[in-house]
Amino acid sequence: MRRLALIAGLLLTTLAHADEGMWTYDNFPSAKVKQQYGVTIDQGWLDRVREATVRLSGCTASFVSSEGLILTNHHCIASCLAENSSKDKSLLEDGFVARDRKEEIPCRTQVADVLVGMENVTDKVDAATRGLDDRAANEARKRTLTALEQACEKDSGLKCQSVTLYNGGQQFLYRYRRYTDVRLVFAPEAGIAAFGGDPDNFQFPRWCLDMGLLRAYENGKPVAVARPLRVNFAGPKPGEFVLVSGHPGSTNRLLTVAQLQGLRNDDLPPSLLRSNELRGRYIQFGKQGDAERRIVDDPLTGLENGIKVRRKQLDALLDDGLMAKKRADEAELRARAAKDPALAGLGDPWAEIEKATARARDIGTEYGYLEGAAGFNSRLFRVARTLVRGAAEREKPNGERLREFTDAQLPRIEQTLGAATPVYPELERLTLSFGFERMREWLGPDHATVRALLAKDSPDTLAAKLVDGTKLADPAVRLALWRGGSAAIAASDDPMIKLARDVDPASRALRKRYEDEVQAPVAVAEEKIARARFKIYGTEVYPDATFTLRLNYGTVQGWVEKGTPVEPYTRLRTAFDRATGQAPFRIPASWEKVRAQLDLDTPVNLSTNNDIVGGNSGSALLNARGEIVGLMFDGNIHSISGAYWFDTAKNRSIAVHPAIMREALRKVYDAPALLRELGGQ
Amino acid sequence: MRRLALIAGLLLTTLAHADEGMWTYDNFPSAKVKQQYGVTIDQGWLDRVREATVRLSGCTASFVSSEGLILTNHHCIASCLAENSSKDKSLLEDGFVARDRKEEIPCRTQVADVLVGMENVTDKVDAATRGLDDRAANEARKRTLTALEQACEKDSGLKCQSVTLYNGGQQFLYRYRRYTDVRLVFAPEAGIAAFGGDPDNFQFPRWCLDMGLLRAYENGKPVAVARPLRVNFAGPKPGEFVLVSGHPGSTNRLLTVAQLQGLRNDDLPPSLLRSNELRGRYIQFGKQGDAERRIVDDPLTGLENGIKVRRKQLDALLDDGLMAKKRADEAELRARAAKDPALAGLGDPWAEIEKATARARDIGTEYGYLEGAAGFNSRLFRVARTLVRGAAEREKPNGERLREFTDAQLPRIEQTLGAATPVYPELERLTLSFGFERMREWLGPDHATVRALLAKDSPDTLAAKLVDGTKLADPAVRLALWRGGSAAIAASDDPMIKLARDVDPASRALRKRYEDEVQAPVAVAEEKIARARFKIYGTEVYPDATFTLRLNYGTVQGWVEKGTPVEPYTRLRTAFDRATGQAPFRIPASWEKVRAQLDLDTPVNLSTNNDIVGGNSGSALLNARGEIVGLMFDGNIHSISGAYWFDTAKNRSIAVHPAIMREALRKVYDAPALLRELGGQ
Repeated sequence: MRRLALIAGLLLTTLAHADEGMWTYDNFPSAKVKQQYGVTIDQGWLDRVREATVRLSGCTASFVSSEGLILTNHHCIASCLAENSSKDKSLLEDGFVARDRKEEIPCRTQVADVLVGMENVTDKVDAATRGLDDRAANEARKRTLTALEQACEKDSGLKCQSVTLYNGGQQFLYRYRRYTDVRLVFAPEAGIAAFGGDPDNFQFPRWCLDMGLLRAYENGKPVAVARPLRVNFAGPKPGEFVLVSGHPGSTNRLLTVAQLQGLRNDDLPPSLLRSNELRGRYIQFGKQGDAERRIVDDPLTGLENGIKVRRKQLDALLDDGLMAKKRADEAELRARAAKDPALAGLGDPWAEIEKATARARDIGTEYGYLEGAAGFNSRLFRVARTLVRGAAEREKPNGERLREFTDAQLPRIEQTLGAATPVYPELERLTLSFGFERMREWLGPDHATVRALLAKDSPDTLAAKLVDGTKLADPAVRLALWRGGSAAIAASDDPMIKLARDVDPASRALRKRYEDEVQAPVAVAEEKIARARFKIYGTEVYPDATFTLRLNYGTVQGWVEKGTPVEPYTRLRTAFDRATGQAPFRIPASWEKVRAQLDLDTPVNLSTNNDIVGGNSGSALLNARGEIVGLMFDGNIHSISGAYWFDTAKNRSIAVHPAIMREALRKVYDAPALLRELGGQ
Repeated sequence: MRRLALIAGLLLTTLAHADEGMWTYDNFPSAKVKQQYGVTIDQGWLDRVREATVRLSGCTASFVSSEGLILTNHHCIASCLAENSSKDKSLLEDGFVARDRKEEIPCRTQVADVLVGMENVTDKVDAATRGLDDRAANEARKRTLTALEQACEKDSGLKCQSVTLYNGGQQFLYRYRRYTDVRLVFAPEAGIAAFGGDPDNFQFPRWCLDMGLLRAYENGKPVAVARPLRVNFAGPKPGEFVLVSGHPGSTNRLLTVAQLQGLRNDDLPPSLLRSNELRGRYIQFGKQGDAERRIVDDPLTGLENGIKVRRKQLDALLDDGLMAKKRADEAELRARAAKDPALAGLGDPWAEIEKATARARDIGTEYGYLEGAAGFNSRLFRVARTLVRGAAEREKPNGERLREFTDAQLPRIEQTLGAATPVYPELERLTLSFGFERMREWLGPDHATVRALLAKDSPDTLAAKLVDGTKLADPAVRLALWRGGSAAIAASDDPMIKLARDVDPASRALRKRYEDEVQAPVAVAEEKIARARFKIYGTEVYPDATFTLRLNYGTVQGWVEKGTPVEPYTRLRTAFDRATGQAPFRIPASWEKVRAQLDLDTPVNLSTNNDIVGGNSGSALLNARGEIVGLMFDGNIHSISGAYWFDTAKNRSIAVHPAIMREALRKVYDAPALLRELGGQ
């Protein structure tokens, strides 16, 4: 607590300090970096790195060869590996090496985006919403963004997405070059990619070869990349200046105290309880046999990762020191805003947010179960809802639709619906029954929807009827319903479609209430607070993460854990020492076989003080010349509180060292062609 | 929050208000009751009710016939039902009716205690600890209590237990008449006893026949009870004055703010996460078949009950209004104590507790996994630890032993070790593997104990070796090791005994640290605070619940839930309306069969504003004449925050109405003899 209090004073005057900051490419503090580190990051550098930085679903990656080769984390291609597995054979367990182009396997639901342009449209959105009340402004904002995206896509032929920065302080339109044909090239076994599994997740020291290679294709040919990033296999020196280019997913550093309390009291505890029970169900299911273990492997890994993140986020919010600092920051901003004549008429947006947060508490649980994924917890139900809603929405003008069904979204929806990916009925029944059971617990057995669903059924019998009766696991059936529109949906007697149809009115009504009573006032109030913050602190700040491209800098360094220094590098030898022969501490046979040939001094992972969060996974760690000297894949345990503030003393990010990539491709996986393509030998 | 703030002012001046209060029998506010309700509760009334009030393991009960018949809740005899079940036939599912005395089944691990005397020994304990430092005082206190208990048992031939009241403000010696031969007489099916299951738990309106009958025996004959309580089958009128005599388990209303924050931040979240995962594992295990479902039925029910309690306790502690009230109360007490010359030299016990709480945070997780039940989560391991420690402890003088192994405790330990109760290896493997897995997660794979346990094993393989290898499921083996003492333990090659032996040094060392660095300073500081509280507020307060006999009063009433009044009675008709045919909303076949004969207007459950908590389950609800007019079995959802304060507006307790007991015994279970013994027909 003392540490937090100390830093609070500093923060109030500078806001961004040390190597903190997730900077947009149009506002990178090059002058400060030059002054502090003597390194020049000029526009040429920025353009080159931006063009080679790739956004995947939930992750980052980099072009690393002129023939479209993409380097990212193993855990970023896990869904592709799972989609190309079955309950009898798992690419997650076994790994994969394409010996030539023909062996590369499509990742059917993956896309790869490269940011090619950024346009500030704040004024256009302001003009469209000026003078409207909260709800009308919220609707007008969505309509305007949809129209801007549509016009942009038509003009440019590129993928256009609106981006909200500074919690509403700025509105941008980002243009991406999108590649929809992405193929799997290389993945090590999960046993070495995620050595230590969940127990070691968010820990350092660490020994993971968390790498994977994809390739982007266009018109059936590898994409030609003019300026790919090059790997420097020597890696960085201790203390060396390094940068990370990537897409941090989400931070909440600018939230108000009321919003943070809402997370602490109303959101995180129930969500953690639910996830932990599901974890237990998955684990117990997976013990029934090899097939069951393979079926839950990928969802369990994702679930456990999310649990650890939210558990440490809750710890951070329960720290009265953190909350006191947030209170002090907010009080200072409010006091200065009240005195600033230019901010007259600001009103009290903090109180507005507090009111909306109370409203969220009243309807949030029902919203989560009926409209969120908590209740109808099944892939096939989500497909059904997409089909039911998509049919209704596509009949409306583009600007009037739910935002996830605008024209700009349709190709991606169709790609996903049409992708032949495995569906495991056992898993669907498990998650759906779980969702129904918890819905009954949290909404009560007498809630109208619960009562209707479970009038004569238990969660298990209902889930079984739905999963066994639906045909939506078949992509052809899905596409036929998608293309058939409202008529096809109305005529369908598929039980999952019927369920999605039946619950849609109640569910949509709740969503509307939530948007009107919670999201709309919050959006307006956040804009006002952002305006005050800009006015008082200027633009020497960075926006919260929004899964859009950012660049940050730092140095290679460890930290001090309870008085003991943690060195920033690990070596291969220790991985073998720690191995127990049992998952998740079992080193794959492929490595044990060549152990004698391996250089056990090879560095495996390293830690830096870069300010990154989930979404940065797969990001290149770059040296001052823009060479890849590491592959970000995690943070230490203290990095999780990075959601709310940056702890200079302890927040560290973790990378795969390039030397272990070379050692693995050369000696374990015997992939000299890939190594050469990466610039190694 | 506004409501809490409003009441805070009131509390500061009166402390006890409305019908709040868990009064000891020697300090019942008869005058206040007389004045407020016009009811006379004199010493004769108190003695008669006390003598008929029974304490079971974790529950309360009452003598209801002159031949030792005991009325309590179904969920209070669940462990007896489970112990007399197998994976092929479950008394929990099927219910049980003893048609005559010979059919009554021993509850092998149950005892029944009746409080017969209370002696205030505060001065004796004070004399023994005066002038000592925290750790020495803690040891001296334990030694003194052991000696007092020993002398008392020798003198009286009764069961003597020390009781700490007012968080250390008073020390008592309670004398009990103990019955160790307790037999099962009647239990309905869980389907009606716990109709609505976990979804309805802690809810009202409610429809549960949560009753069960036992009989106490002595020398092979039913115990003769001079003055049993009589059942008044008419039940109470709305608004009627009622009392509850019983053993509330534990409340934390007198804790300091630092202690409440410790619960909120450090204790409840991890314990809830762990329990929820175990819930998921149990549920998924239970889906594998009928046998598996029966195996987890009883532990799952207990686990889910505990989850709901702790979840709502966490909600209460996350309420800033509650915490603000606690802060204000504490500030007032501290301010008044500082000004009181009689309290000069009090020091700052609140700061001492805060320091100890911080210490608990540092070592609490390790303590929980190594010494608590979190890590070695298995009945057979607990047996092994009892045997290993019991052998070592019994070699020491009585006063020097761990408190759970003093002479006074030994008969109960031997009763439990010798009881032939079912052990399910599948369940043992499940819980033990779970404990090892979480121990590795929370202590880390490199923790010395974890490393030693899992050097070449996974949690599953280790659990299987231990459970499959041990012979401790056999009571004869257990008793032989118990009687063999240290020599037998040293010679044993039972893997569970070996494990308990191996981890004992580390585990005992941690316990000693925890006692010295956390418990000792807290005990001393709590005594000081209790002294200040007595000095300032007098004895017009009641002590926190400690699973000792208390009496409280109130009236039959509902409450207002979000603007809607909740009526205090439910009727049988609605239970049938709500039934779905699927557990836990399936009404047993025995009831469906006689549905046409049942009076559907029969009241089933009722609500009162008595201040009770867990441990009061099975308590008689009494009218002014001391007749049984209900059987307490639960509280409403708001009652759970009763751990920290009594919410006059919403905290309600829930009872089984006697009319439904009569209806059930007469028409469903065809048990006229039992009904007559209860005074009905």
